[in-house]
Amino acid sequence: MNLILLFDEDFIAPDRVRLHDRRLTHMLEVHKPEVGEQLRVGLLNGAIGLGRVLSLSAHEAELQVELDREPPAPLPLTLILALPRPKMLKRTLQTVATMGVKELWLINSYRVDKSYWSSPLLSEQSIREHLLLGLEQAGDTHLPEVHLRKRFKPFVEDELPAICTGKRALLAHPYNASPCPAPADEPTVLAVGPEGGFIQYEVEKMLEAGLSPIHLGPRILRVETAVPVLLAKLFPLPT
Amino acid sequence: MNLILLFDEDFIAPDRVRLHDRRLTHMLEVHKPEVGEQLRVGLLNGAIGLGRVLSLSAHEAELQVELDREPPAPLPLTLILALPRPKMLKRTLQTVATMGVKELWLINSYRVDKSYWSSPLLSEQSIREHLLLGLEQAGDTHLPEVHLRKRFKPFVEDELPAICTGKRALLAHPYNASPCPAPADEPTVLAVGPEGGFIQYEVEKMLEAGLSPIHLGPRILRVETAVPVLLAKLFPLPT
Repeated sequence: MNLILLFDEDFIAPDRVRLHDRRLTHMLEVHKPEVGEQLRVGLLNGAIGLGRVLSLSAHEAELQVELDREPPAPLPLTLILALPRPKMLKRTLQTVATMGVKELWLINSYRVDKSYWSSPLLSEQSIREHLLLGLEQAGDTHLPEVHLRKRFKPFVEDELPAICTGKRALLAHPYNASPCPAPADEPTVLAVGPEGGFIQYEVEKMLEAGLSPIHLGPRILRVETAVPVLLAKLFPLPT
Repeated sequence: MNLILLFDEDFIAPDRVRLHDRRLTHMLEVHKPEVGEQLRVGLLNGAIGLGRVLSLSAHEAELQVELDREPPAPLPLTLILALPRPKMLKRTLQTVATMGVKELWLINSYRVDKSYWSSPLLSEQSIREHLLLGLEQAGDTHLPEVHLRKRFKPFVEDELPAICTGKRALLAHPYNASPCPAPADEPTVLAVGPEGGFIQYEVEKMLEAGLSPIHLGPRILRVETAVPVLLAKLFPLPT
């Protein structure tokens, strides 16, 4: 937790918050601040700044906060992922939130095990929790939007073409593909398949919808490695 | 497993192998090949190619193999990591092997919990297993070398300067740092700290040893995300 995320209900005055829950636990166990010390804080979907510890006990912490800066810039990216298996989904949600992705579509694919769609990790509450962890890691405040699409065909036929319009639209798929393009700070759509890849039918549907296939070279990366590598290749270093 | 790794002891003739163990299990449960089908294979630390299934039963598989190509090129990188916590170490070993790192130093740091050094994951056997999984994922055969250094000071004073000589030598450290340099296919040393970063004393010692600090922008990434991002930024797409 490199930033303590604040919510409207934490405020007891315009510049003062009172914290309980896991954020207090984290302060007590990890930060261990003295009274008067300043910690990085940010308002969910708002500005970031510093919070000076006014008091700290086993039951609550009070901070005086000044939120005077913008959080890191988002990536201009719409990321489409074949739903990963639950264990990997957790980490993926955190990673994409940490890296600044603000729009994520989790979609079905032939190689996505049906059982993944009934995972409790897909509840709104659980998705939000993992995204918040990712934001706190990054020092960001803007919660990504996550869309679930359990049916592949209606998604690629009815929604994907409009998502791609006017954007650099890419499909990470190693066959008949161009090398991953150079970093560019431009609106981008990127689709990444499941372990084992999208099947040929799915690839064809996605190309029809406007995506172009790209590859990362001869090494085959797991999804959780491929995503950070692709984002690092596609976008310039943020400033 | 995108490639079945072969060992000398698998060969029953110059072009024929017999497999038992987890590789057989993987073939039976995941690949499910017909007799006559070809699978990607590679000899540990050697060439890659195809293996045609001659026979397959619950007890063993026999393949006729032709190893006629070089595995993907290695990254010209010496990677130095503060020892990650055990759960993350597993994934890190796999990831660095998948991405083509061939020399890894796991070192101590003030923020590395002492208990991590007694993890059974640090046994030679266990390190090797996770590296093999990473190679099989990538389609690579060359096993990385892993060095463990439980004492920080002798490592940075007595070994690190020579490791850095004649190389692009970088320390991922967000303070007083330059932006991560552009991709270059040149011999590189990269050091990455623990969660929370190297402490000031350690940073100073590493700068003295010849490393230059670089950063990845305002977002703070977990080690398991920072490593793929750094490698993607520092090296051109392999061909």
